[in-house]
Amino acid sequence: MKRLLPVSLQNVHLEDDFWAPRQQLVRDVVVPYQWKALNDELPDVEPSHTVANLKIAAGEMEGTFHGMVFQDSDLYKWLETVGYVLAIRPNPELEALADGVIDLLARAQQPDGYLNSYFTVARPDARWTNLRDDHELYCAGHLMEAAVAYYQATGKPKILDIVRRLAEHIDRVLGPEPGKKRGYCGHPEIELALMKLHRLTGDELYLRLAKYFVDERGREPLYFALEAEARGEKRVRPYNFKYSQSHQPVREQTSAEGHAVRAVYLYSGMADVAAETDDEALLAACRRLWEDIVSRRMYVTGGIGSSAYEEAFTVPYDLPNDRAYAETCAAIGLVFFSHRMLQLEADAKYADVMERALYNGVLSGMSLDGQRYFYVNPLEVWPEVAEHREDMHAVRTTRQPWFGCACCPPNIARLLASLGGYIYSVDPDTNTAFVHLYIGSQAAVSLAGQDVRLIQRTRYPWDGEVQLQVSASAQAEFAIALRVPGWARRVEVRVNGQPVASSWESKGYVYIRRVWRDGDTVTLSIPMPVEEVFAHPEVRMNAGKLALQRGPIVYCLEEVDNGRNLQSIVIRPGQTWTAQYEEGLLGGVVTLQGSGWRDVIRPQGEAVPREFGHGQPLYAFQRCAREETKVKAIPYYAWCNRTPGEMTVWVRYES
Amino acid sequence: MKRLLPVSLQNVHLEDDFWAPRQQLVRDVVVPYQWKALNDELPDVEPSHTVANLKIAAGEMEGTFHGMVFQDSDLYKWLETVGYVLAIRPNPELEALADGVIDLLARAQQPDGYLNSYFTVARPDARWTNLRDDHELYCAGHLMEAAVAYYQATGKPKILDIVRRLAEHIDRVLGPEPGKKRGYCGHPEIELALMKLHRLTGDELYLRLAKYFVDERGREPLYFALEAEARGEKRVRPYNFKYSQSHQPVREQTSAEGHAVRAVYLYSGMADVAAETDDEALLAACRRLWEDIVSRRMYVTGGIGSSAYEEAFTVPYDLPNDRAYAETCAAIGLVFFSHRMLQLEADAKYADVMERALYNGVLSGMSLDGQRYFYVNPLEVWPEVAEHREDMHAVRTTRQPWFGCACCPPNIARLLASLGGYIYSVDPDTNTAFVHLYIGSQAAVSLAGQDVRLIQRTRYPWDGEVQLQVSASAQAEFAIALRVPGWARRVEVRVNGQPVASSWESKGYVYIRRVWRDGDTVTLSIPMPVEEVFAHPEVRMNAGKLALQRGPIVYCLEEVDNGRNLQSIVIRPGQTWTAQYEEGLLGGVVTLQGSGWRDVIRPQGEAVPREFGHGQPLYAFQRCAREETKVKAIPYYAWCNRTPGEMTVWVRYES
Repeated sequence: MKRLLPVSLQNVHLEDDFWAPRQQLVRDVVVPYQWKALNDELPDVEPSHTVANLKIAAGEMEGTFHGMVFQDSDLYKWLETVGYVLAIRPNPELEALADGVIDLLARAQQPDGYLNSYFTVARPDARWTNLRDDHELYCAGHLMEAAVAYYQATGKPKILDIVRRLAEHIDRVLGPEPGKKRGYCGHPEIELALMKLHRLTGDELYLRLAKYFVDERGREPLYFALEAEARGEKRVRPYNFKYSQSHQPVREQTSAEGHAVRAVYLYSGMADVAAETDDEALLAACRRLWEDIVSRRMYVTGGIGSSAYEEAFTVPYDLPNDRAYAETCAAIGLVFFSHRMLQLEADAKYADVMERALYNGVLSGMSLDGQRYFYVNPLEVWPEVAEHREDMHAVRTTRQPWFGCACCPPNIARLLASLGGYIYSVDPDTNTAFVHLYIGSQAAVSLAGQDVRLIQRTRYPWDGEVQLQVSASAQAEFAIALRVPGWARRVEVRVNGQPVASSWESKGYVYIRRVWRDGDTVTLSIPMPVEEVFAHPEVRMNAGKLALQRGPIVYCLEEVDNGRNLQSIVIRPGQTWTAQYEEGLLGGVVTLQGSGWRDVIRPQGEAVPREFGHGQPLYAFQRCAREETKVKAIPYYAWCNRTPGEMTVWVRYES
Repeated sequence: MKRLLPVSLQNVHLEDDFWAPRQQLVRDVVVPYQWKALNDELPDVEPSHTVANLKIAAGEMEGTFHGMVFQDSDLYKWLETVGYVLAIRPNPELEALADGVIDLLARAQQPDGYLNSYFTVARPDARWTNLRDDHELYCAGHLMEAAVAYYQATGKPKILDIVRRLAEHIDRVLGPEPGKKRGYCGHPEIELALMKLHRLTGDELYLRLAKYFVDERGREPLYFALEAEARGEKRVRPYNFKYSQSHQPVREQTSAEGHAVRAVYLYSGMADVAAETDDEALLAACRRLWEDIVSRRMYVTGGIGSSAYEEAFTVPYDLPNDRAYAETCAAIGLVFFSHRMLQLEADAKYADVMERALYNGVLSGMSLDGQRYFYVNPLEVWPEVAEHREDMHAVRTTRQPWFGCACCPPNIARLLASLGGYIYSVDPDTNTAFVHLYIGSQAAVSLAGQDVRLIQRTRYPWDGEVQLQVSASAQAEFAIALRVPGWARRVEVRVNGQPVASSWESKGYVYIRRVWRDGDTVTLSIPMPVEEVFAHPEVRMNAGKLALQRGPIVYCLEEVDNGRNLQSIVIRPGQTWTAQYEEGLLGGVVTLQGSGWRDVIRPQGEAVPREFGHGQPLYAFQRCAREETKVKAIPYYAWCNRTPGEMTVWVRYES
């Protein structure tokens, strides 16, 4: 199936005021910090035991397994991050550390290729008996992703050998052939990972396995039911097959159901398999599922999965702000899924959602200093209540140093480190270079047989001016396709200062095809007014409220700027907001300033109903007084980096 | 301590269009229905096993105990209801049935006076080892309340003998004396029950025990901690002593904490003990706790306890509408507590809250046909979401035929059956007759040595005209104190058609002292406009919303009248609402009709942001279109008696 080829991060060098410092933070702070976490060296944090588990599995340490059954995957995501970090800039010390990890993995791998510290240490006889819950393939998938990243960065084959032996072991145990278990993983991940391995190596084994896992899922008789019966499982509640998207064959699925991270990881793998196998029905399922998410089940921040229970999608338009789950990993998975669909369809709507999630629901998951994390990303917080109510137990009102289930911190690290790979694509058939994201960078691409360098300069997301300079040793005819952001009402495109004569727009991209000469410069001007966002009326929680967005950035109000009780604030739509770049604030952000009213305590007066008394009655037949108030909004992603307190994305309005 | 004396239900005969049919329903439908429930004779309902447990305890049936540890109390509340029903009107058949129950209880009572089917059947060696959780005193208390009601109705002493022997047993086991356990019950109830027994019999034992239970609660060393240690208890979470109001001595408690039913039952018992022992410090604690509830922790319906977890109070102003717990029993308990405070303080605010709970949060707990019940009383329901989300698991979107924990159905029955006792009080010291509730009735009171009959005629709660006629064989000087409802902005009082010359108002009562002659008639005219209720701005869930109230009735909107998506409706404050009595609707109710707007899908237009597409985008930079809509509100208590669907008490407004 025809698809765009992303320009790999090895070929993209970030030079960006917004993202380059974040990548540096990942390299200099996050990777060392997370290494400490995985080695139980953080003070005041429950030990992770991740590295220890593998040492025990390798027979080099005494002890028992601790942590989640998928604890290994935290290290694998860290190793993947290291791969990306090394691809950006050599770092012999870090590479030596990673090589040591890989050596440990080689020693922990069993003679038959099996590699999983939980089963090797704790339940060696129970391998592959509970694919539904035990994450063996999930962990294998994360190791495969790490292997691809690390090999691409260093060229060292050792980790590829490890995963090849692991994949061969999996192939001996699982599959449709007689004598094998017809299983698949309760937590999808290996599908997309196998596809990365296949694309790297060309080895058909990986494609065959990935396609098998995708095809088998949800087929009758349901494997998880057979497997549970074989285990003699007793459950209080029946297992919800939707939780793991195993309720029906994937091609028949029409709505995004169950655990949100599982869902978008699965759909990503489905898109990969569809692309490689020309599977139109599978692609159609991906399209339907993506549309279902973005038209009915997504927060304005790009967060998905609105229920803490099962970390899951619920029903259409059920998007409570105070009990949003919106797991950081799920927003990251939506980036993965959207990025894959973008390559398949060259439709900017996929890039729009990718960008929305990236700048909002993903980035909110990590503090500005890289050492505190949100697993859950609410859109409204009243700390006293969130900290008290049991039905909001999942919400944290401040970012945490680590988690017992620590999937999110290394996930955000690997996405930020690999961001260079999301900016550009090339369509070799039509000689087109796509610019999906506006991030200052230099990209080396091959177009019409020529090595071309694209130099992007921008102050995005704070400013909509983008300059794209072509650098090539000789002239060449190709097209540049510039994404018109979904939030833009209009754009202006110039080449060498002149409005372009020959361009056309298709699915959100402006295509400029011409003979490009060294030094040619395209400028894209995207006005970035403050926009008021209104939700579909079925989203009852947002009735009478609006959110603020400027460019790709969704805003929020914080108590530290606006005082207590943010729900008492009312703003008038259509007002002129002052957007101002504040260099010293939150690492440099554009803030929005406007005005509104605030419900305040009603003045002393006739007390009706009397039972509630004078002064500050709980209920009264009289409205509160209102007083004028200034309103200041900051980017949602940056919330809770100052004094903790209330926060809200959606603000009441009255016209 | 001086207190008003409620006119007992034996001396009050209801003649009321609103309440008399409800009492008939209790007699003719609810009592037989609940008897079937207790005897496992309802089709399609999990067996209650309540009567069976007692038969097994009496050695008359084989089997094991089933149900909650406090299952006996469901029968005791039923028996109490029967007592009230018989007090209103003789019913030999029902009385014979109840006598049979009492005979069974006598046979189930152990030789030492102990009576509890759970321990007798299931754990005979574990009596009094877990007062915190096992409800032995709670069950005893409900039996005592039943005994008082049944004895007062029938004069038959057998049940009094049973509870006397039980109380004597309790006194041998528990108390401050050496060799006894210094325990008290995890679920308060026995305190108020013992006080009823004391007031009926004059026996000091009951007062002494009640005072001991009140005084001992929360004293260091905490009994529940010692007891748990003695049991060798292991817990995952530490026990929350606030749950049972045992975290500190009751006189030191300043905020209403923990399980809401436990709280208001305790406070009721505290008020009773304070009254009998002239304990000003205890009364002061009651005042503080009552004020804390009504000024920070009560729904506009009189519902209390806003969290399903531990069925508890949470933090001030945390009153979510969709996840309201507002257990029917808690609103009933608030009636009990407020009624007691009313006698002690003669302040109408207590009657206001009693009335608010009664007409709204209590009455909502039972269907109009008496055979379906709400345990949880939300103020906003979106059925698809409530039925799907785990964090709303406690909310039922339709009333249920019975419950595994069936405390509420018999509780509402006993309150409705005993309502006659809540209407009037007498202050013998000042020769004053108080009228607290406007309910058509005849009350026989003794004032200034005269037998006086007060005949009240009214169409309340639908109309604010009240006529009170004095019937006496001779003239007598006394005062009539008429409550001015807290929701009334003004009232007009006439005696024999003339504005009264000599009256004064104090704490919400208009006092008319004069020499009354047979046939004298007081008329109280209370205008009953439709009022808009606004919550304190700290109640963030109600920001930008209002509720409708007319007289004591709080209204709601239902989907069946207003279509789907009630949160899309906006009304303009200050509009003229049409209040209309609809005889054929919901047993006859006044409905409110007005107008507003409704957010509807935005018209096709510029699609920004584009990612959400045209038509019905999830988010857009454009407001929804609005269309005018009629709005119809019905009394909250009557919701969900027609086609189930959405419901909301709080409605968005924009001026």
